[in-house]
Amino acid sequence: MLNKKPKKPYINWKARLHEIIYEADTPAGKLFDIILLIAIVASIVFVMLESISEFNARYHNFLNIAEWVITIVFTLEYIARIISVKKPFRYIFSFYGVIDFLSTIPKYISLIFFGTQVLIALRALRLLRVFRILKLARYLGASNMLASSLKASKTKILVFLFAVLIVSIIFGTLMYLVEGEASGFTSIPVSVYWCIVTLTTVGFGDIAPVTALGQFIASIIMILGYGIIAVPTGIVSAEFVSQNRGNHGSPARIPEVDLNTEACPYCSAEKQKDNAKYCYNCGHPLHENT
Amino acid sequence: MLNKKPKKPYINWKARLHEIIYEADTPAGKLFDIILLIAIVASIVFVMLESISEFNARYHNFLNIAEWVITIVFTLEYIARIISVKKPFRYIFSFYGVIDFLSTIPKYISLIFFGTQVLIALRALRLLRVFRILKLARYLGASNMLASSLKASKTKILVFLFAVLIVSIIFGTLMYLVEGEASGFTSIPVSVYWCIVTLTTVGFGDIAPVTALGQFIASIIMILGYGIIAVPTGIVSAEFVSQNRGNHGSPARIPEVDLNTEACPYCSAEKQKDNAKYCYNCGHPLHENT
Amino acid sequence: MLNKKPKKPYINWKARLHEIIYEADTPAGKLFDIILLIAIVASIVFVMLESISEFNARYHNFLNIAEWVITIVFTLEYIARIISVKKPFRYIFSFYGVIDFLSTIPKYISLIFFGTQVLIALRALRLLRVFRILKLARYLGASNMLASSLKASKTKILVFLFAVLIVSIIFGTLMYLVEGEASGFTSIPVSVYWCIVTLTTVGFGDIAPVTALGQFIASIIMILGYGIIAVPTGIVSAEFVSQNRGNHGSPARIPEVDLNTEACPYCSAEKQKDNAKYCYNCGHPLHENT
Amino acid sequence: MLNKKPKKPYINWKARLHEIIYEADTPAGKLFDIILLIAIVASIVFVMLESISEFNARYHNFLNIAEWVITIVFTLEYIARIISVKKPFRYIFSFYGVIDFLSTIPKYISLIFFGTQVLIALRALRLLRVFRILKLARYLGASNMLASSLKASKTKILVFLFAVLIVSIIFGTLMYLVEGEASGFTSIPVSVYWCIVTLTTVGFGDIAPVTALGQFIASIIMILGYGIIAVPTGIVSAEFVSQNRGNHGSPARIPEVDLNTEACPYCSAEKQKDNAKYCYNCGHPLHENT
Repeated sequence: MLNKKPKKPYINWKARLHEIIYEADTPAGKLFDIILLIAIVASIVFVMLESISEFNARYHNFLNIAEWVITIVFTLEYIARIISVKKPFRYIFSFYGVIDFLSTIPKYISLIFFGTQVLIALRALRLLRVFRILKLARYLGASNMLASSLKASKTKILVFLFAVLIVSIIFGTLMYLVEGEASGFTSIPVSVYWCIVTLTTVGFGDIAPVTALGQFIASIIMILGYGIIAVPTGIVSAEFVSQNRGNHGSPARIPEVDLNTEACPYCSAEKQKDNAKYCYNCGHPLHENT
Repeated sequence: MLNKKPKKPYINWKARLHEIIYEADTPAGKLFDIILLIAIVASIVFVMLESISEFNARYHNFLNIAEWVITIVFTLEYIARIISVKKPFRYIFSFYGVIDFLSTIPKYISLIFFGTQVLIALRALRLLRVFRILKLARYLGASNMLASSLKASKTKILVFLFAVLIVSIIFGTLMYLVEGEASGFTSIPVSVYWCIVTLTTVGFGDIAPVTALGQFIASIIMILGYGIIAVPTGIVSAEFVSQNRGNHGSPARIPEVDLNTEACPYCSAEKQKDNAKYCYNCGHPLHENT
Repeated sequence: MLNKKPKKPYINWKARLHEIIYEADTPAGKLFDIILLIAIVASIVFVMLESISEFNARYHNFLNIAEWVITIVFTLEYIARIISVKKPFRYIFSFYGVIDFLSTIPKYISLIFFGTQVLIALRALRLLRVFRILKLARYLGASNMLASSLKASKTKILVFLFAVLIVSIIFGTLMYLVEGEASGFTSIPVSVYWCIVTLTTVGFGDIAPVTALGQFIASIIMILGYGIIAVPTGIVSAEFVSQNRGNHGSPARIPEVDLNTEACPYCSAEKQKDNAKYCYNCGHPLHENT
Repeated sequence: MLNKKPKKPYINWKARLHEIIYEADTPAGKLFDIILLIAIVASIVFVMLESISEFNARYHNFLNIAEWVITIVFTLEYIARIISVKKPFRYIFSFYGVIDFLSTIPKYISLIFFGTQVLIALRALRLLRVFRILKLARYLGASNMLASSLKASKTKILVFLFAVLIVSIIFGTLMYLVEGEASGFTSIPVSVYWCIVTLTTVGFGDIAPVTALGQFIASIIMILGYGIIAVPTGIVSAEFVSQNRGNHGSPARIPEVDLNTEACPYCSAEKQKDNAKYCYNCGHPLHENT
């Protein structure tokens, strides 16, 4: 193993790049992640600012330049990712590969087509990239517990959502019949929409019942919604309580949070074991100097 | 028992029909249920679309034909159900029998009377038929637990609702006296309606206090509502927690979910025991070939 | 003891009246309570209907007569209560004595003064009388548990309310400075009122921020309110859970619900012990024939 | 120790002042706290009243005098605090020292500059002083428990808030693209603001979707918000439940609430031990006569 080191000097350069991009444990990797995080957040902020017409009118040039800078950063990152992995196509057609591509191209497309609204949507996709960088160990434990609690109560929540939907359709139809077009209940879908607005206690007030019977039915819907809100809360609370109990009582049940941020340079498989020398997926050495 | 099989060939046809309609375990039964589910959902969607006046103006003919197709499907199903059971009247006057009848007739009635709003309500009733088809085993466990939790906290919820009603009437009367007709508090019932809107944190805003004293009382109502919402949530949470504990600690307390979808072809009794040969209710053989 | 019975025949008549009025265990007592309950609910409904101006204009005579009937019923009941107790003044100046008096007089006052709004408030007080009649055993257990849960978390709820108030004043002042009079934030009290409306997720929308900074601060207030709502819910939930556990685990901790509806005919003390012969408070015999 | 008493008579006067100001256990200390509490609450009320233009126009002189009285009370208190501690600069640059200074000066500044809005904000800062006075033993236990519950679920709440923010930005951008400027979704930041308003079930209604697709997406956001509200509630509930259990089961885990209100006259260190003679921080005697 030791005699391999001086033999492939050019590979070491790629391996180093791979470590910087895919791993957050080294200082260079951390710096890379922080720069990328700033670029992503900045790009989101610029998309937002550009949508404010007076701001865009005033600082159009600045926004244009900033967008080009971010696009170039993303382009370089995209190329670096393709170079540093051994099987580039596996990366290109992976979930994050597609998102990286889509969030890089909008500015290039805008050179050909002008003012397309769809480009804003593409640019908003960049937000999804944040998830990759957020390999912060501290929060993973908490979010894992949140996710497992939600997963455990999934069927209950589905039954509950189905019940909410049926109640909304029945009461929505009823309100359409009772109130009619004059009060804004112009069709059953609009009426069902109003019913969801009311049942979830949002209550915009753009549509509101005006007849006595309509207000009476609305009161029933509201009190029902008030009661219904207790159900998902109860479900999740019970799940958290039972998780808390499990954790305090039997420490063996604490879910093992995977904090290893290494990825195989050959097959891009993540979640490598700590101190592993070879990828669990393809058997390739994780570090070139081993 | 074995010599009965060749004796009644005509009965076998009816028994087969009964199995398809009333049981979800066989492939034919599943297909029947899926077709019916599509028909029901489609009929609901068409009722909704018809209520959108511009859509109705444009696609009136299409909606008319679609409604006739669904009505014919429902008619055939209704007739098949009557034929396949041994005691048709028991089915006709059962809960689902009446709903099946009511959700079939609207189109026929519309031939005689034109544009009656009530027909829409009748057609919305079709949604209730969904419950019969949803014999999905997975969700029954979850919904059973939901139902039993709600049942266990029934009296507490009733006391709570009664308290909400009394608070609403008292504060509603108070707001009527304080605000008067100028701000929209035109009568005590309207004022009580506003109070329920506020207490449940829906807050439409179609009626809102404008005097200083009115806004002060409204603030008290809102904070009260904020506190009151904790009560049903707490009740249901506690119920779920104690159910969760029961299930985890003593597996004997897991409620037995009845997943058998068979129904007796003679008396229509449901919830037959698994592997039962004779109806627990009337003693009739469940399968003609036994 | 036995020789007392024939001696006071006139007292037996009063004792009988006392039993009918103050106790719900006998058939006559139950009938009395039901009639009174109907009278109270009817009187509330009539106050509500009278406030609807078009209804009042149409059925003024009917409402007037109905109000007189109810007033006479209440007057008779008030006199009967005074006669049947041995110490009338103790009853007259008790909480329910004052309420009974106040809910009886509005119609008599209206003979002298016309159209006074205050009379409506007096009539609404009648609702408080419902609580006396509702000696229903079933619900007492549930409401006792509700009450004791709320009492146990009283200080926590007070701290929470104080925190809500301080947050509202600080953010209200901030919004007043940021938004100014143009958006409806005309003064700090109005701004604090808006802040409570927002924090409790009611959101009327009669006042809403229009400046970018105002909307940013509003977003913080809303997310804060979303988080804060978890606190009272958590408090009450935890209380219910610990009560549920107490009840399931150790049956000795089930709170003893006092279902005895007897009241001493001499000193009007309630909550007598079951099967008691003498009042625990004044030593007077509870039943004249003992 | 005993021979020290007659030696420093002038020190005793300062020590007495220190005890009155910094400790709530003596009658004089309690009186001082109550007077200060009244002054603070009164100053807040006056700031509020002054913001109501019609009230200010009418009672301008009264408000002016009242403000001067409060300013003088605060000035005297500020001077007394500086005199009574041995290291005045440590107090002046402490958190409460700065707040005391800032809440004293507004009236003096108003002599030089007129009508500055910032002064109102400075005056509102006085509310923060309430926290110092509220050394009420009863509530400390409850608020400590509240605080420790929130602290224990801090990371979970942060993950949750981050999720809410990302959902708001994604759906906000979507709604901006779908609804456009006509319905009030004038820019992405405004759209994200609307999304937070909806997700938290506040629902002002100043901006509301009008297109069918917009209302459909809004329905999804609302039901999502309805489900999301369960998460913080569940987290806090579970925390309270586990705290309640800890307290009931093992009395050793009841958090020790620090009710000692003494402060060192030399270094101003708070939270002295009960019956301590010397400061735990600087070794200075806590009471001059020891």
